[in-house]
Amino acid sequence: MTAVMPAGVETARDLVGPAVAAAVGRLSPEVRTVAAYHLGLDGGGGTGKALRPALALLSARAAGAAPDRGVPAAVAVELVHNFSLLHDDIMDGDTERRHRPTAWTVHGVGAAILAGDALLALAQDILLEDSAAQGVWAARCLSAAVLRLIAGQGADLAFEQRDDVTLAECQTMAGDKTAALMACACSIGAIHVGAAPGLAMGLAGFGAHAGQAFQLTDDLLGIWGAPEVTGKPVRADLRARKKSLPVVAALTSGSAAGEELAGLLAQPGELTEDDLARGARLVEEAGGKSWTENEAADQLAAAEKCLNETGMPDDVRAEFAGIAEFITARQW
Amino acid sequence: MTAVMPAGVETARDLVGPAVAAAVGRLSPEVRTVAAYHLGLDGGGGTGKALRPALALLSARAAGAAPDRGVPAAVAVELVHNFSLLHDDIMDGDTERRHRPTAWTVHGVGAAILAGDALLALAQDILLEDSAAQGVWAARCLSAAVLRLIAGQGADLAFEQRDDVTLAECQTMAGDKTAALMACACSIGAIHVGAAPGLAMGLAGFGAHAGQAFQLTDDLLGIWGAPEVTGKPVRADLRARKKSLPVVAALTSGSAAGEELAGLLAQPGELTEDDLARGARLVEEAGGKSWTENEAADQLAAAEKCLNETGMPDDVRAEFAGIAEFITARQW
Repeated sequence: MTAVMPAGVETARDLVGPAVAAAVGRLSPEVRTVAAYHLGLDGGGGTGKALRPALALLSARAAGAAPDRGVPAAVAVELVHNFSLLHDDIMDGDTERRHRPTAWTVHGVGAAILAGDALLALAQDILLEDSAAQGVWAARCLSAAVLRLIAGQGADLAFEQRDDVTLAECQTMAGDKTAALMACACSIGAIHVGAAPGLAMGLAGFGAHAGQAFQLTDDLLGIWGAPEVTGKPVRADLRARKKSLPVVAALTSGSAAGEELAGLLAQPGELTEDDLARGARLVEEAGGKSWTENEAADQLAAAEKCLNETGMPDDVRAEFAGIAEFITARQW
Repeated sequence: MTAVMPAGVETARDLVGPAVAAAVGRLSPEVRTVAAYHLGLDGGGGTGKALRPALALLSARAAGAAPDRGVPAAVAVELVHNFSLLHDDIMDGDTERRHRPTAWTVHGVGAAILAGDALLALAQDILLEDSAAQGVWAARCLSAAVLRLIAGQGADLAFEQRDDVTLAECQTMAGDKTAALMACACSIGAIHVGAAPGLAMGLAGFGAHAGQAFQLTDDLLGIWGAPEVTGKPVRADLRARKKSLPVVAALTSGSAAGEELAGLLAQPGELTEDDLARGARLVEEAGGKSWTENEAADQLAAAEKCLNETGMPDDVRAEFAGIAEFITARQW
C-alpha cells in the first residue's frame, strides 16, 4: 500500500476546482463570502481533498466518456460534500478544519447554515442544467445520497445521547453518513453520461465499500492521526466523545479495557489531555483499533472485488483501485 | 377587503397535507421526529397557513389541469417553505412559532439544521420523481427560488450588522426572501403540467407582487400584530431589532421620530417593554407604518393587474385574487 496521492486526485482538482469556483460565484455576495472561505477559494487554508470529484470524473470515463463530461457531476458531489461539512462543523462544535478555523466560528452560525444551504441548492441546480433524462437520473442519484447522508448525521447526533449504541448501528450510520455519497460519486458520472444500469450499480457497489473503508480510516485518524497532518485537534473524536467505530468496537468488546473506557467517557466535564491519552490506549487495549484496521482491509477487498467484476477500461479500473488503496493508507 | 380565509386554502390543506406527511414519513426516525414536530404532524401546534400549496394547486388549474395534478409541486413548495422556517428560526433566535416553541429550542440546533436540510432535499426529490421534461423545469424553478430565498436571508442577516440599510436594499431583500418563493408557488404547478411560458411568466409576476404584499403585511404584523393571533411574541421584530420594511422606512424618513428611533435601536442591551412600545409609536410617527400600508396596496394592485392580463379560467383567476386580497388583510 502507498500513501502517495494518486495523480487523478490532483487532475480532478485542476479540472473541477475552477467549475466549483464558478458555481460559488453565482451566489449573492454575503453567502458567497462564507462559502468561498469554507472552500479555501479566498486563498487561505487548504482546498480539501478532491477525492469525490476525482471519483466522479473516473465514473464518467468508466462509461467511455471524456473526463470533462464528468465535470458537472463532480462539481455537484463536491458541493454536497461541502454543504455537509459546513453543517456538520456546527452540529459537532468543531472549531478547526483544513488547518484553519471553521466557517461558523469566523462568520457565525447563521451565515454558515446559509452557506451550506446554498451549496446544496446549487448542486441540484447544476445537474438540472442538463435537462436530458440522464441529468434527472443524476440529480435523483444525488438527492438519494443527500437524504442518506442526513439520516446518517441524524443517527450520529442521536448516538451522542445514548450509551447503548451497537457496532451494527454504528456501521449503518457510517454507511449512510459517508459511504452513500462516496457510492454516488463513483456512479453519478457514469449515470450523467447515460451509462447502462449494470455499470452504474457496479460502480456504486465499489464506492459503498470504499466509502466504508474511508470512514473506518477517518475514525482511526480521529484518534491516532497527527494534528499537523489532519488539520484537526489531536484526538478530536475522543475529545468530542464521538461514538466512532473504534470507540464502539472497544465499548462493546466485553473487555476490562472497554469497561474502563466507558467509565472514562461517562465522567462529567471536559476530558483532560491525560484522559484523552488514556482513552486512546484503552480503545487500543480493548481491540477497537485492530478491529477497525481489519474491517477497513475487508471493505477495501470488497471494493476491489466489485471493481474487478464490473466492465470498464483497464486504466480507469487501475485509477479507481489506486484511490481506494490510498483511502485506507492515508495519514489525513 | 376581507380577512376570511379563502376556501382554496383549506382545500389545499386537505389535498396536500397527507402528501406532505407521506413525504416526511420517508425520512429516518431521528430526522422525521424533528420535521414532524415543526410541521405540527405530531398533533401539536398549528399546521401552518397552507397558502403556498393553495397557490401551487391553483397554478396547475390555471393551465387547465385537475387540482390533484398540482400536488407534487405544492408539496415541494411547502417543504421548501418549512426548510427555510426551520433554519431562519435558528438564525434569528426565534423561540416561538405556530403557538409553540420552535424546533431548535426543543430538539437542539443540530437536529433542527438537519431537519431543514432533509426537507430541502426531499422537495427536489419529489419533483424529480417525474422524469419528464416538465419535472426538470419545475425542479429548476424551485432551485432558482431556493437560491434567491437564501440570498434574501443572507442579506437580512447582514443588515443586522449595518445601520445604513436603504429602503431599496430592504425591498430587494424582501423580493428575494419572500416574493421569489411565492412567485415559484404561483407558477410551478403550471410549469409542472407543461404550461406555455407566457402563462408561467404571468403567474410568476402575479406571485412576485403578491409576495411583496405578503412580506409588507408580515412586517406590519411583526410590530402591530396581536401575539395570540400571530403566534409570535408581541412586537417580535422590534425586539429582535429587525431591519423590517416599516422600520427602515421610518429610519430613512429624515424625520425627528426616525432619528429618535435610530437612537433607541442603537442602545445596548435588551429592549424593555416600554422601549418596544415607544419604538412602535416612533415607527408610526415617522411614517413607516403608512408607507408600508400604501406599498402593500400598490403591490396588491400590481398583482391584480398581472392576473387580469394573463389568460386562465375565470374561477381560477377569482381564487387567485381572493388569496391576494386575504394576504394583505390578514391578522396573522
